[in-house]
Amino acid sequence: MQGCSEFDLIARHLSRLGTHRDDVLQGVGDDAAIVATTGEPLAMALDTIVQDVHFPADLPARCVGWRALAVNLSDLAAMAAKPCWGLLGLTLPAMDEAWVEQFAAGLHALACQHELALIGGDITRGPLSVTVQVTGRLPHQPLRRAGVQPGDRIWVSGQLGEAAAGLARWQADGSATIDEPVVQRFLYPTPRVALGLALQGLATAAIDISDGLLADAGHLARQSDVALVLDSTRLLAQVSDAVSYEAVLRGGDDYELCFAAPPDADKAVKQAAQATQTLVTCIGQADFGAGVWLDNERVDLRTAGYQHF
Amino acid sequence: MQGCSEFDLIARHLSRLGTHRDDVLQGVGDDAAIVATTGEPLAMALDTIVQDVHFPADLPARCVGWRALAVNLSDLAAMAAKPCWGLLGLTLPAMDEAWVEQFAAGLHALACQHELALIGGDITRGPLSVTVQVTGRLPHQPLRRAGVQPGDRIWVSGQLGEAAAGLARWQADGSATIDEPVVQRFLYPTPRVALGLALQGLATAAIDISDGLLADAGHLARQSDVALVLDSTRLLAQVSDAVSYEAVLRGGDDYELCFAAPPDADKAVKQAAQATQTLVTCIGQADFGAGVWLDNERVDLRTAGYQHF
Repeated sequence: MQGCSEFDLIARHLSRLGTHRDDVLQGVGDDAAIVATTGEPLAMALDTIVQDVHFPADLPARCVGWRALAVNLSDLAAMAAKPCWGLLGLTLPAMDEAWVEQFAAGLHALACQHELALIGGDITRGPLSVTVQVTGRLPHQPLRRAGVQPGDRIWVSGQLGEAAAGLARWQADGSATIDEPVVQRFLYPTPRVALGLALQGLATAAIDISDGLLADAGHLARQSDVALVLDSTRLLAQVSDAVSYEAVLRGGDDYELCFAAPPDADKAVKQAAQATQTLVTCIGQADFGAGVWLDNERVDLRTAGYQHF
Repeated sequence: MQGCSEFDLIARHLSRLGTHRDDVLQGVGDDAAIVATTGEPLAMALDTIVQDVHFPADLPARCVGWRALAVNLSDLAAMAAKPCWGLLGLTLPAMDEAWVEQFAAGLHALACQHELALIGGDITRGPLSVTVQVTGRLPHQPLRRAGVQPGDRIWVSGQLGEAAAGLARWQADGSATIDEPVVQRFLYPTPRVALGLALQGLATAAIDISDGLLADAGHLARQSDVALVLDSTRLLAQVSDAVSYEAVLRGGDDYELCFAAPPDADKAVKQAAQATQTLVTCIGQADFGAGVWLDNERVDLRTAGYQHF
């Protein structure tokens, strides 16, 4: 169905289900939902990864476990939330104890890095897919998508396109080794949780880059009602040799953050990046208007990123 | 793999993943997890339903949406939690807007009954399955599985076996109509949320019956370290005509509650049932010892209920 993206589908049928509750501070439409409790507010996210859709069938079990949690922690990172608890829904075609053990080891390793406890789960029989739900505390104000101001600088973390390049290497032939840096970036994405928390009070908005830079920048622009003006020279300044320009713009699965901050926060942003040992690069700025612009040409967002439908 | 049930698999590999956290009051092993927040504690559950495993391919979309939420609300009911927020992971083989609309309507109807808001979701492409995660408030002490005391009476809500009988009717031939009571019980299971809340302070333990009475009674017995002694005469007293004895004992998907309460709470239990318009039946009692006993014969729990593996 042309023009009917996942986003449209969710917006149309699934964004207002159930009762209206005053304790829902953010519903469908950001990287995570936010609810008010009798104590501090909580951020909640849920993501599913499906074999042959989100990861190739030959992805090692350890990497499947890691990835299922990583994509969710990336959503918490983009809200500046501190991960606390996770629930797991694992659907497996057959009982394979060695597979489950490796899967568990991958999930466990990443959970421990972020002091997250897995508190519940459900194992079912069926085609391989993994759903993880995570809840995080919000020690400060959350970082939303809808906060970019005209004049803000636009930043990204990490080196974009590496996951896409790593996937291409992984799938190309038998010559890729698991130790190659871009292959590692694909196998073990790094959610930028510490950076998200460190940007609190500095950034005006953030999103995690899961569908590719241009597509996710499009979400930021639309939800903030601004234009994002990106500069290819800056974009390419921090890209590693193994990565194509196309992968930088449209490659998915990087799980880096794209965020905005006013120009007078430049120094503080760099300090936050250094304190969390994260590379950050300024790739443009926000302006009055709409859409995403790359070197003065407006990007067609209908073809910018990966759409499931 | 003989003897390696879903339960064993979870217990072995997935029950201690991630960091140990002091704010986890109940991890894997009960109907829902419980976490401490800076305010009141919260109960969290997650369940996945997969086409051809948990529901037949011809189940109407509206019933799929209802069921995906119902199985989760049933877990909250068994903890005496009040449902608040839900997250949805919907995996669909193809974009079918009419299907999604009906699915959403079913989920919405049940969510509204329980004042639950759907706060987030993820739609992915893949073989049809639905994962829902729910969070509820715990206004009082939670009802756990591990609380049955020797001497307690054992109660069940509703009329057991009706969902299994309804599924059999549904699958038998073209003659079943959607209006038949047992078919309705299969299509639209009723999570006993109000009863669970009303049992607070009365019941010593509870579990929801999803895998069949004997299997779930087995969990109660093991986790409470008692024997459950059930009486077939009492069990059959409240069963409707369309239902076989086998379905009463082993039929899944009823989503009724099995709970324990001391004998001096009999009157209060009946009042709680009446106040919440729920049928309850005393089906036996707890004793020192182990296992589930039916008319003085010990039940073989290895074959008591449905196992995915």
